[in-house]
Amino acid sequence: MRPVDIIYKKRNGEINTKEEIEFMINGYVNGQVPDYQISAWLMAIFFNGMTKEERYHLTMVMRDSGDTIDLSGIKGIKIDKHSTGGVGDKTTLAVGPLVASAGLKVSKLSGRGLGHTGGTIDKLESIPGFKTAISKDEFFKIANEVGMVVAGQTGNIAPADKKIYALRDVTATVDEISLISASIMSKKLAVQSDGIVLDVKTGSGAFMKNIPDAVELAKSMVEIAELNNRKIIALVTNMDQPLGDNIGNSLEVLEAIETLKGKGPKDFTDLCVELGANMLDLSGLYTYEEAKEILNKNIENGKALDIMKMWIKAQGGDERVVDNPEEILPISEKIVEFKAEKDGFVSHIDTEKVGIASMVLGAGRKRKEDEIDFSVGIKVLKKLGAKISKGDTIAKLYISEKSNVEEAIELLKEAYEISKNPPKEEKMKLIYEKIVGGK
Amino acid sequence: MRPVDIIYKKRNGEINTKEEIEFMINGYVNGQVPDYQISAWLMAIFFNGMTKEERYHLTMVMRDSGDTIDLSGIKGIKIDKHSTGGVGDKTTLAVGPLVASAGLKVSKLSGRGLGHTGGTIDKLESIPGFKTAISKDEFFKIANEVGMVVAGQTGNIAPADKKIYALRDVTATVDEISLISASIMSKKLAVQSDGIVLDVKTGSGAFMKNIPDAVELAKSMVEIAELNNRKIIALVTNMDQPLGDNIGNSLEVLEAIETLKGKGPKDFTDLCVELGANMLDLSGLYTYEEAKEILNKNIENGKALDIMKMWIKAQGGDERVVDNPEEILPISEKIVEFKAEKDGFVSHIDTEKVGIASMVLGAGRKRKEDEIDFSVGIKVLKKLGAKISKGDTIAKLYISEKSNVEEAIELLKEAYEISKNPPKEEKMKLIYEKIVGGK
Repeated sequence: MRPVDIIYKKRNGEINTKEEIEFMINGYVNGQVPDYQISAWLMAIFFNGMTKEERYHLTMVMRDSGDTIDLSGIKGIKIDKHSTGGVGDKTTLAVGPLVASAGLKVSKLSGRGLGHTGGTIDKLESIPGFKTAISKDEFFKIANEVGMVVAGQTGNIAPADKKIYALRDVTATVDEISLISASIMSKKLAVQSDGIVLDVKTGSGAFMKNIPDAVELAKSMVEIAELNNRKIIALVTNMDQPLGDNIGNSLEVLEAIETLKGKGPKDFTDLCVELGANMLDLSGLYTYEEAKEILNKNIENGKALDIMKMWIKAQGGDERVVDNPEEILPISEKIVEFKAEKDGFVSHIDTEKVGIASMVLGAGRKRKEDEIDFSVGIKVLKKLGAKISKGDTIAKLYISEKSNVEEAIELLKEAYEISKNPPKEEKMKLIYEKIVGGK
Repeated sequence: MRPVDIIYKKRNGEINTKEEIEFMINGYVNGQVPDYQISAWLMAIFFNGMTKEERYHLTMVMRDSGDTIDLSGIKGIKIDKHSTGGVGDKTTLAVGPLVASAGLKVSKLSGRGLGHTGGTIDKLESIPGFKTAISKDEFFKIANEVGMVVAGQTGNIAPADKKIYALRDVTATVDEISLISASIMSKKLAVQSDGIVLDVKTGSGAFMKNIPDAVELAKSMVEIAELNNRKIIALVTNMDQPLGDNIGNSLEVLEAIETLKGKGPKDFTDLCVELGANMLDLSGLYTYEEAKEILNKNIENGKALDIMKMWIKAQGGDERVVDNPEEILPISEKIVEFKAEKDGFVSHIDTEKVGIASMVLGAGRKRKEDEIDFSVGIKVLKKLGAKISKGDTIAKLYISEKSNVEEAIELLKEAYEISKNPPKEEKMKLIYEKIVGGK
């Protein structure tokens, strides 16, 4: 087998075999196929795509380049949840305790934030004492006892994907459905869960800017999971505005707590219940309808909040945060308001810019090595469709000495469009599509 | 400027600027842009092509990566001729003396053969004593005194092209019009001639297998020369069968001599006169019609042959070869005949296979480091349209002890198609198209 022949095939619109894909990826990882051949092949894939079988083979060879996570130490049904990333996306913090309150086991490995999106690990670390670097034994123990645990991703998960991604990043081959779905699924399928619920974000704050692309990505990932006999449901959800109202680490923890108290923003609460109901549906414990009822009940009766409290305590965090979040969480008291300059309706929000605004305040990282400030962020008071008058506060900026407030305000000005008419209903819809594996 | 942005532009169908193309090529040559980014860019070029301006910029930056050949030491008008390569293509050996006999100065830098095509330098070296490694002074002296000189390509001509070509070769990005034309023209424009006649081969023995592709390549090269204000004519010519009858080094020299004696095969003689007439037309010395008449006359009256003799002598070769080629040239006396297995017409010849058959006899190189045998080769007796009966000799194989005769016969069997009907006239046409620069 010669790499050049494999590239020719793909370039000419032919299908690469399982063996060819394995040859390329394993060869790249072990240094026998040089990067310049891989990058040419990736660009040919960009133009000619991959069949679902090719995507599956690519996913599996990348997955099998590293460790898989054996969850058999956790009793019960383990359903994983994954979001493709957005602004204000703190669903794990609320959905985890919520579905655990209905009997599921949620044991997540999460990452840190980069760019305009935050990371679950950073958010959790804003809770005083919370430890995300825990041993495998602790991880299993907490999962078994509390039903909810989150640890920082360590170990050698899909190193081939890591290496390929670094190459894609500098060769203009990031934004291709086959490569994106194989990259995500190589990591998801490395975790031996009983099922996966995917939250594929679409809109101005998501990687997939338009709905058809997001649906295509969701379908592709569902197909890969199907070929792996893994249960899966993908929801394509709105990221044309921040999810919920709060952006920034402590602010998001606060909102997750409020939501489990039944006082969260409607869009975020609805999405948590929706994702949770699909997780329970997938587990076979309840039907979707039953699950929705139970989850809503467990918010009302405080069961979900109790789990959250136990979980935070189990991971070393100050569990009083659940009762008095605003006292325990480091939330800046220095606030700058971003105000409307004219009357009208909020008709468009460039949500990525809102995410970057939060980042430049200090809540996120531009580069991996940047430090973040848990106390800063943005609280959005006016979302899509809101009728506003000149002078109304659109958003509150929680700032620190180091925040670049001027740039953040400039970004928010660019991000918000105020028009005579409200946006179309579709722009404010929460769930665009649901794709169920095996159907 | 970042390579990844330049790749994105090309990938997205945008046009790269002169500065961007220079940044990529110069960066690659000096090691600042890594090969994996260049190969991704080349693959994007494969899919999205280049405008004629982009091709021109690519050509010029590759040309300017090395030396240019100053021909001002040669008095008179210097017209260069270049063939894209075929089987039995010994035109330089005959056209050179032919146009020199009409007053042109032909000073060529040529290469060695590789694969199914032979090289002018190898052919010339089959003449006992002939030296192709000559000094610059000798080169100019012979050009001035004889009007015809050929030296092996030395020096640092378009090193960027060499580096890029090596990368294209292993990344499936060889066969793209922009890249091919820039590669050829970067070397042609490095020679400061007064004009260029291109012989773009098309058919089963050429790199360009079909006429439209060859015409596109020819037009692309003409456009590049025009942007460089270089006079140019491109002919798209038939390579659906070997050019002339003889393939192999000594055999081809023999045929070139026979042709200047007026006893050459019709197709080869016609092509030499055609190329020569266009070279003279381009020089402004004669019109195309006048030139044709003069060239035909100079074959009849032996003037072209005299130049050939002087030329061979000037480069140290045994000039008696012109009078008694079969005595002086090393031509094998061991002959195997390839015979027809049925009656019919020669309807198709896979000419590349015929070239490879000659190569496996020892006349060519599979790899650069292979040695060749001047004495072996193939004499084709039956060409396209020939009516043959079972048992007729189609070709004579001139072999040596080392020749792989079995493989050569097998290749010829595969190459020749004998059918009830002769091929279409177009398949036997000599010149398909003529593209004149500046028109």
